[in-house]
Parts: sequence; C-alpha cells; structure tokens
Amino acid sequence: MSKAGLLRERLTGPGAVRVAGAHDALSARVAEEVGFDAVWASSLAISAARGLPDMSLLTMTDYLQAAGHINDVCTIPVIADCDTGFGNALNVAYMVRQYEAAGIAAVCIEDKVFPKRNSFVDTDQILEDADLFARKIEIAKQTQVTKDFLLIARTEAAIAGAGVDEALRRAHRYVDAGADAVLMHSKSAQPDEVLSFLDRWQRRAPVVVVPTTYYGWPAEHAAEAGVAMVIYANQALRASVQSMRQALGAVLAAGCSVGIEEQIAPMAEIFRLQRVDDWLALEA
Amino acid sequence: MSKAGLLRERLTGPGAVRVAGAHDALSARVAEEVGFDAVWASSLAISAARGLPDMSLLTMTDYLQAAGHINDVCTIPVIADCDTGFGNALNVAYMVRQYEAAGIAAVCIEDKVFPKRNSFVDTDQILEDADLFARKIEIAKQTQVTKDFLLIARTEAAIAGAGVDEALRRAHRYVDAGADAVLMHSKSAQPDEVLSFLDRWQRRAPVVVVPTTYYGWPAEHAAEAGVAMVIYANQALRASVQSMRQALGAVLAAGCSVGIEEQIAPMAEIFRLQRVDDWLALEA
Amino acid sequence: MSKAGLLRERLTGPGAVRVAGAHDALSARVAEEVGFDAVWASSLAISAARGLPDMSLLTMTDYLQAAGHINDVCTIPVIADCDTGFGNALNVAYMVRQYEAAGIAAVCIEDKVFPKRNSFVDTDQILEDADLFARKIEIAKQTQVTKDFLLIARTEAAIAGAGVDEALRRAHRYVDAGADAVLMHSKSAQPDEVLSFLDRWQRRAPVVVVPTTYYGWPAEHAAEAGVAMVIYANQALRASVQSMRQALGAVLAAGCSVGIEEQIAPMAEIFRLQRVDDWLALEA
Amino acid sequence: MSKAGLLRERLTGPGAVRVAGAHDALSARVAEEVGFDAVWASSLAISAARGLPDMSLLTMTDYLQAAGHINDVCTIPVIADCDTGFGNALNVAYMVRQYEAAGIAAVCIEDKVFPKRNSFVDTDQILEDADLFARKIEIAKQTQVTKDFLLIARTEAAIAGAGVDEALRRAHRYVDAGADAVLMHSKSAQPDEVLSFLDRWQRRAPVVVVPTTYYGWPAEHAAEAGVAMVIYANQALRASVQSMRQALGAVLAAGCSVGIEEQIAPMAEIFRLQRVDDWLALEA
Repeated sequence: MSKAGLLRERLTGPGAVRVAGAHDALSARVAEEVGFDAVWASSLAISAARGLPDMSLLTMTDYLQAAGHINDVCTIPVIADCDTGFGNALNVAYMVRQYEAAGIAAVCIEDKVFPKRNSFVDTDQILEDADLFARKIEIAKQTQVTKDFLLIARTEAAIAGAGVDEALRRAHRYVDAGADAVLMHSKSAQPDEVLSFLDRWQRRAPVVVVPTTYYGWPAEHAAEAGVAMVIYANQALRASVQSMRQALGAVLAAGCSVGIEEQIAPMAEIFRLQRVDDWLALEA
Repeated sequence: MSKAGLLRERLTGPGAVRVAGAHDALSARVAEEVGFDAVWASSLAISAARGLPDMSLLTMTDYLQAAGHINDVCTIPVIADCDTGFGNALNVAYMVRQYEAAGIAAVCIEDKVFPKRNSFVDTDQILEDADLFARKIEIAKQTQVTKDFLLIARTEAAIAGAGVDEALRRAHRYVDAGADAVLMHSKSAQPDEVLSFLDRWQRRAPVVVVPTTYYGWPAEHAAEAGVAMVIYANQALRASVQSMRQALGAVLAAGCSVGIEEQIAPMAEIFRLQRVDDWLALEA
Repeated sequence: MSKAGLLRERLTGPGAVRVAGAHDALSARVAEEVGFDAVWASSLAISAARGLPDMSLLTMTDYLQAAGHINDVCTIPVIADCDTGFGNALNVAYMVRQYEAAGIAAVCIEDKVFPKRNSFVDTDQILEDADLFARKIEIAKQTQVTKDFLLIARTEAAIAGAGVDEALRRAHRYVDAGADAVLMHSKSAQPDEVLSFLDRWQRRAPVVVVPTTYYGWPAEHAAEAGVAMVIYANQALRASVQSMRQALGAVLAAGCSVGIEEQIAPMAEIFRLQRVDDWLALEA
Repeated sequence: MSKAGLLRERLTGPGAVRVAGAHDALSARVAEEVGFDAVWASSLAISAARGLPDMSLLTMTDYLQAAGHINDVCTIPVIADCDTGFGNALNVAYMVRQYEAAGIAAVCIEDKVFPKRNSFVDTDQILEDADLFARKIEIAKQTQVTKDFLLIARTEAAIAGAGVDEALRRAHRYVDAGADAVLMHSKSAQPDEVLSFLDRWQRRAPVVVVPTTYYGWPAEHAAEAGVAMVIYANQALRASVQSMRQALGAVLAAGCSVGIEEQIAPMAEIFRLQRVDDWLALEA
C-alpha cells in the first residue's frame, strides 16, 4: 500500500493520528523511531533550519527538496506543509504534480495570501478570499493522479482574528471543494477555539490540529472531542536548538566536550540512525 | 576583509581557533552566537541530517549546497569538509572553483580514496597514494583565484593504521605541495598520536585537530602543544539527536508537550534565530 | 573589475550594449563566443528549457540556479530576468542577496503582480501598483552590498495596455526609487511605443529594450534613438527548437544521421565548447 | 502501465527501439513529438548544457535532477546515462534507489573507472575490473523495488582498445550478473565492431548501440543484425549548437533578427511546447 493509502487508513482508525514536525531527514527518522504515525515537513522548521524566517522566502523548490529528502528515508507517510500553495491555483496544480510524484502522502495548504507570514509571528495575517482558496482545492484534487493522495485545507481564520464562525464557514466551503481534511489552526493558549469549532463541525471531515500554544491538551482528549490528527509541529526543532546551544556553550567554556559526553548521543547512535551497518552489509 | 582573510588572520593569532561542526544553517548560527570562531560544514553531520551514511553517497553538489546555505547566514568563516575532493585532481579543481565562488573560506580534503568511509566507522580505511594526493593539493592551490582562500590537507594515516611516522611524512609532502594547514586526524582515546605528531612537526604549518575520541583534551592544552585549530565536529549534531529523541518520546508518552515546554527553546527563540524582527523591520 | 563593474562601464560607452538571451550555460557560452556583451538569463527561455510555461511556476531557486550555472562558465556579465521579484518587497530583498552573492551583475524586475504571465502570451497582464513596485526597488538598492550591482526596472505598462504615458510615469517613479536603468517593454510590431517613450524620456537613465516583436529595428538605430541596451531575448532558444526538430525528424525518417552530419556541429565543436582540452591540460 | 513497463514491452516488439539523446526537458519534448520511443538523458549532453566536460565533474545529484526534469514533462520512458554508477557498488545502490523513485524507466552504467572520461575524447579510457562491475550490476538489480525497472550494462571494451572479444566476454559476465540489456559501445567509423559482436552474441539479451561515429548505418539494418535499441545520443544537441551560433551571429551582424525570423521557431511554437494553452485552460 502507498504511504498515502496508509495515512488514509490511519485517519479512519481509532484515536488521533500523531504527527511530528521535522526540519530534515534525521529529525524525521528520530520521529519514526520514537513511534509517530507520520511526519510533518514543517515550513517553519525547514526555514528555521536554513536560518531564514517562515515568510515565503524559501520556495516550493526548497520545500519540495526538503520533503523529498525526508520521504526518502522514512517508512511512515510525510505530510508536506505547503503554505499558501506558493501562489495561485496554477501554482497549486504544479505543486500537486511535483509532491505527488515525489511520493509525499499529503499536502496541506492554508488560506492566507502569498507571501505568507508564520502564524505565530506577531504581524498582520491576511486571509485569502475563500472562493479563490476553494478554487485552489478544486484544482489540486483534479490534478492528482493517484486516488489516495490527500489534500488538507488549513484555515487561518482564527489566526487572523476572523473568529471561529468564519473558520467554520470556510471549512465547509473547503470540504465542499474537495478537501480531504481540515486543519483548524489556533494560537489560543487553550483549546477553546478548537473545541468551539469541533462542537459545531459534527465530524463532517477529519479535523487536524496543531497544539503549539495550547500544549497542555492531550491527544486523547483531542480525539474524544473529535480531532483526527494532532501535529506536534516544532517541538523537535525547539529541543534541538536548546540542546545545541547548551552543548556548544559547554564545549567553549571547558575547551573540550568531556563534560557533555554523557548527555549527547554517542557516535554509534549517529551511525545507527544513518543505517551504516545496513550499507556496509550491502557492500559485503 | 573576506571571511578567508579573517580565518587566516585568526589562524596566526594567539590560542587555537575554535571551530564547531554544523549540519545546517541553524546549527551554524547557534555556533556563531555561542562564540565559535568558525564553522565546520561536516560531511558526517550533513549526511546524517540527510539520514544517510558518511560514505560518499551524497555528492559535491549536495555538500556545496549545504555549505552555501550555512555561509549565507553566518558572519564567521565556513570551513568545508570536502572528503577526498570528490574524485581525482580534476574534481578537486572543479570543487575549488565552486566553493571559492560560493564564499567558503577554506576547504579540507583528506588522503583516502574515493568513495571514502567515515573515519570513525569500523571498516577498512584505504589511503590515497601520497603523490596523487599532493597533486590534488597543487591543482587546488593553482585553481583558486583569491589570495586568502585556504586549503587544509587532512591525513588519515593514523586512522588507517599507518602510524604517526607516515602521517608526518605525508604532512610534509602536503605542505610542500602548497597546503595552508594540516589536519592530523586520530581516533585514539587520548591525544597521544597528535602529541607525537606535534612534537616532531615543529610548527612548520598550522595543525588542525578533531578531538572526537580524545575529548578530554582542552583547547588550551592543545594550543600549548602547538595546535592552531580545534574542530568540535559533531557535538551539536549529537546533542540535537539526543534531545529530539527525548522530547518526541515525552510528547508521545504524555500525548502533549506540556512536560517539556521548559526544556525546549520557546518559539520566540526560534524567531530570533530566524531574524524575524530584522526581516519585518525591512518591510516596515 | 567585477562583472557588474564591466556592465556599468559598457552601459556608459558608445552604442547600445548587445545582450543575448540564454536558456542554459551552453547557449550563454555560444553567445559569448559570437561576441555579445552580456547574457540575459531569460525566464521565458529557462522555463521553456524545463518544458514549463513562463508563469511563475519555476521559483527563484530554479532561476537562481540556472543563472548561476550560466555565470559559472561565462566571462561576460549575466543579467538575470527576475520576473516580479518573486513576491513582495521582502522576496526582492532576499533575491538581491542571493543573486549578488552568486556573482550575477544585474537583476531585472517587472511591475506586474506575482504570479506573472509571460508578456507575449495572449492573456490578462496585471500591473503591480507603482508605489509598491517602487518600494521593491528601494529595498533592492538598499540590500545590495557591492557598489556596482545593477537593478533594471522593467515596466509592463505598454504590455498591459496602459499606454506609453503610464510607462513614462512609472519609469520616472522607478528611477526616483533608485533603479539603475529602465526596461521599456513593448509587444508592438514596430518600435513606435519605444520611440514615443524615448522621445520624452530625455536619457534620464539608460533605457533597455527587447525587440522580440519589432525585430526589424537595428541596434544602431535604437542606439541613435537613445537606447542603451538591446536584449535579443529568445532567438537562440527559437533557433535551437527549430533545428532540433528538423534534425531529429530527419534522423527518424532516414533511420540514421548521415543526412544531417554536415548541418550539425561536429563532436569536436561540442568538446571545444566544453573546454575539454583545458581540463585535460590541467590534469597533465 | 509504468514507463519502465512500456520500455520493456517495446524492447521485445518488432524493430529497434529508437531513442533520442536530450540535454534538457525541452529537447526531450521535441524528441517525443517527433516520434521517438524513448529519451536518453545523456551525460555528454547534460554536461555540455552546463558548459562543462563529460568527465564526472557533474555529480549524480546534477544528472538525477536533469533526468527528473526531463521525465516530468515526457510521456515516453527516460533512460538515464549514469556513467560508472558514480563510484562503487554502494553508490550504484543509492543511485538505483533515487532514479527508480524519480520515475526513470532505465539506467545505464558503463564499465570504466570513476571518474570517467567521455568515450569520444582522445584520452586514456580505463576499464573497470569486470568482476567489480558485475558486482555493481548485482547490487543494482537487488536494490530496485519495482519489477520493470531496467539496468543496461554498457561495455567500453572496444572504446578502450580491448577489442570485441573482451566486449563479448564482459557482456556475458554482465548478463549473468542480471543486466537487462547490453550496450556495446564503439567509436569505429563503421558498424564493424558492433556487427562482429552481434554475430557471436546470438541475441542472448537485448543489444543497444549508439551510432555516433558509424552514423551511416540505418536502424533498419541494425535491427536486422540483431540490435534492439538505437540511441541517437547527441544529434539534437549538435543541431542546437550549430543553429544558435548561426542565429546569434546573424543577429549581431545585422543588429536585428529580421533576417532569421523565418528560420527560427516562432514564439507561438515555444508557447506550444510549454503547453501554455493547457495551463491557461486549467486556470479558466
């Protein structure tokens, strides 16, 4: 079964699909080993790995390459965070062709105008016209060639301050247009907006959430409330940054790494994640 | 002054140049902020970030792209780990053109045959003929167009079991051929091989070391013994792996990230590393 | 002197600068050998080489790579056709950083909205607001770090049916904002619009033209009328397509290439363009 | 049916499969329109398009990208010229994974040592040890995951001056190792070496030829003699170079393109090859 097929199957199974954000193939492989169901090729994380803001500076080419590298080394499905679809409906059509051909299981596009700003950055968030966005969804669905490839429509209505009612209105519009799932994004410190949405959504299509700010809400509760997929979009990246700063700071202060050797992965663990033994066996 | 000029200047200054290995632009930026003098675009780390072994599977194109992305966002010099030079002397000439044009301050090539195996992997390590390698160095130096661009010649003699005498013989040969510095690589648990090398080298050209296995040797001691540059090649990567595994494991176990929020970098820290405010200010 | 410096110098010299459009490094090298002063890394030609329409489907990453490959093998300056700047003012800032660092001498941006449509395609052509476009120019000029790097502002006013008056108004606005030259684009079968523009422009800043449709107007006449640069943007590509179709058709019809051997370049000519002898000499 | 399946089917059909070399997606699309059965993503042509010699300077990453761009816009199968496999047996394994995942129908590897030199360049041609090469084939076949993906083993024995007997010996060795077809390369001005090979080969596996130097031999004769596939590897490239030089020379001489407009493709033809109307229709 294709990875897209696996993801579809998992979406209709019990409990919420648990997805980890990755910024590269290595973080994705760690997520797979830890037990996540799928990987989120996050535009925040991928742009951060490049040292650049998540503001549509990196291009579809860059994000596709990153998602492809992740997919190459993972057996779990990859869901690509595709921002606004990188332009208008034709850009979305081109995007779907490229991502689907690369073996990506699902793409997610959001209803903001290009170039977008990261949803958690304190700046204006400009919503795309809902009809134009619905047209993107229609073209995306009409472009895909395999049955199982998924399109997740993400509404930024709550992020942009337009409220849950507008989010609901848009979510219905997007599912009418063919979206396979809806991502209800919220930057509230509590799952209040999401719960309000779920309450009135009545499980019409799978709902995806990204609990970056309302991080105290367990997946189990989310699933009970009607959430089909939970994306932990940036925690691996944030753990990585913190630990690198501490480790490098300690090395510089001590002039050597003896003090941190116990806290960092041994070389053997890096080799294992690189599958060195498998490659050497192939050669033997 | 160019970054290569800065690196040359720093090499002749007091104490050892302290260099941190990076696997992407973000880890390089953390290294710069922490206070390192330069970044090592490590082939181990870059291939690990791709989920692939450090066995010449990734190509010059891949490594050059990664080094370029790092260089784009750092103000400190980037030293590129260029394995064997990716083939023969012509490949080295092409490599020098490309890396120098990309603004990389220095390249490092090692005297093993292509395709190489990572020096710490327990497998055969096959040395390149010293004359052929010296020819690579000559061509590299004759190819560069700016005065300050540096070539570091790395001898794997000790790694390959050929001993310190052979390392010394090769180091002299390589400096005769034009190398700007010599990397004496060792996988001993103590700096014994390096000390033996330094003892007889008499500071003829700057010596670079990578204390991955002899990690208890402080840079200050190394500098006193005659080391000009210390590369902490993989500690950031290893810290990152360990912390991502812990963080993702905790998220999966708890079903949410509340338990780790204090141990991971806040979103604001990611935005700061992405220079979000600078970009928004530019727009204003 | 940098290539940007060379281009600036040439722009103030006698006669019009003659520029050939290229779709890859090989066509650029042919243009250089034939005697052109500079290369136009054309978005039409580069997207055509990819088999895709010139409609902002390819990204800055793709165009930058293509322009970089061209620049790598040419000694004459490269002028990059950068469409709308690939988004808003921040995208332009990022673009300038990347192109300038890659050694490109000049970039040209046009005052249409992203995603753009090729100017000669029979479809709507939507102009960008002139103030927003002027802001792009200001940010571009403020972003560049070398003195000589050039920004050419291209007005599509005549292409979009807004007329020569609007083109003039915009050209003044763009030069006020810092543009180093103005590209007055026209799809008229005669140079009437361009002549009307030049008549009132009074050589305030260098004027660039692209005589794709008014192809009977010699560069000498253009220079006398006040044109500083003439870009033959797509003729090499079009010659290439015609000849490939004829050659391949003949091969298929005859079952062999004997009938066309005299009309196609010999292998020795390909080797010469690849500089095979120079590379072999380097090895010797 | 997959493109690899189509190619397999065509290989067993009547007459020789006719394949055109391409250097980019556009030349491939022209080849498809003209009626060729498949496209050869030629390393000579792709490196020429980059202005670089065909000497393993470009990397697998570059060639894979070029082959992928070709495959993206063609409906006929793409056969990728993969030089020596870009290193040793592990490089071949990695290569097969990447090319197969990219939808390439077949790869061809040759029995020379890395880095290779183009077969028609007058320089040393060093054969790989036949057993090492056979091992590459075994690993390639064991790595592929789809049934239909093809590996063509190319022997350079005649190119390297080792004679037809050695070519035969190697061809048998390679088919024993799992090769799906054998490319018998020759730079003779007549098909004598190929005929001698075919005479004794007895159609054990499909034979592929590249009549660059023995260009007077029609495909029909080749088919009768037992050839299963004829690759016209570089004629499109060579036609392109010749026509670009003539067109650009004429433009420069006349100061305008009026004299060549009848000999070059009209803009409408470029738009047609870019499928502009299809894309615009999608938008409508």
